[in-house]
Amino acid sequence: MTPMPSGVRIEATLEQLASVNFNADGLVAAVAQDVTTGEVLMVAWMNAETLRMTLGEGRMVYWSRSRQELWRKGDTSGDFQFVREAYYDCDGDTLLFLVDQQGSGACHTGAFSCFSRRFGGDSGPSDAPTAGS
Amino acid sequence: MTPMPSGVRIEATLEQLASVNFNADGLVAAVAQDVTTGEVLMVAWMNAETLRMTLGEGRMVYWSRSRQELWRKGDTSGDFQFVREAYYDCDGDTLLFLVDQQGSGACHTGAFSCFSRRFGGDSGPSDAPTAGS
Repeated sequence: MTPMPSGVRIEATLEQLASVNFNADGLVAAVAQDVTTGEVLMVAWMNAETLRMTLGEGRMVYWSRSRQELWRKGDTSGDFQFVREAYYDCDGDTLLFLVDQQGSGACHTGAFSCFSRRFGGDSGPSDAPTAGS
Repeated sequence: MTPMPSGVRIEATLEQLASVNFNADGLVAAVAQDVTTGEVLMVAWMNAETLRMTLGEGRMVYWSRSRQELWRKGDTSGDFQFVREAYYDCDGDTLLFLVDQQGSGACHTGAFSCFSRRFGGDSGPSDAPTAGS
């Protein structure tokens, strides 16, 4: 029997958490990248609470600016993102999560990545980014 | 003789450019991903002018919010980012560029990626993201 997929709970140090620079709205940008393919899946926002939940639960929890509420990725779609590794950038205003993307993908359009539209040439769903593959 | 590296000039359609949603400050977030390794290198900002320059010149040109001026990546460091492919996300507020990173890397710290600090465990420079590798 295949075990239920789950995420890695990450114990960040206080020093690491203090390096995160939230903007004037209390938010930090979060990039989700597929740990297997390297595809950039989506970019959304976290506040201090959803960052804490994401690290503590091993599942991506975002803050929806449009709905002004927390957004547990996959709760309605089933397309969970389980955390494998988490990074913060040199000026602390962007986070990078390597995730195990469940279900059909990250995008509400049904595409695996939200970045399925390409500038120039054709821009169909088969035209996904090809880095590192 | 090895040819000088250069970027791909991308002719975006008017429809594609109209799909980009600039925020209240006239900016859109831009993710730069290494086309060879798949590493996420950095996230910075573009306005309409620097997006046009990036697509037209085939090299990454950002908008510096702190300096309030355009920032041709590599002009002072030599660490140019040549564009290979460019994507926009489902709601048009984030761009993804696959780039050929020149020089020592993307980060002003000397690291190849700006995301060289990891939550939890050790967070040294050797602790770079491992997606897709």
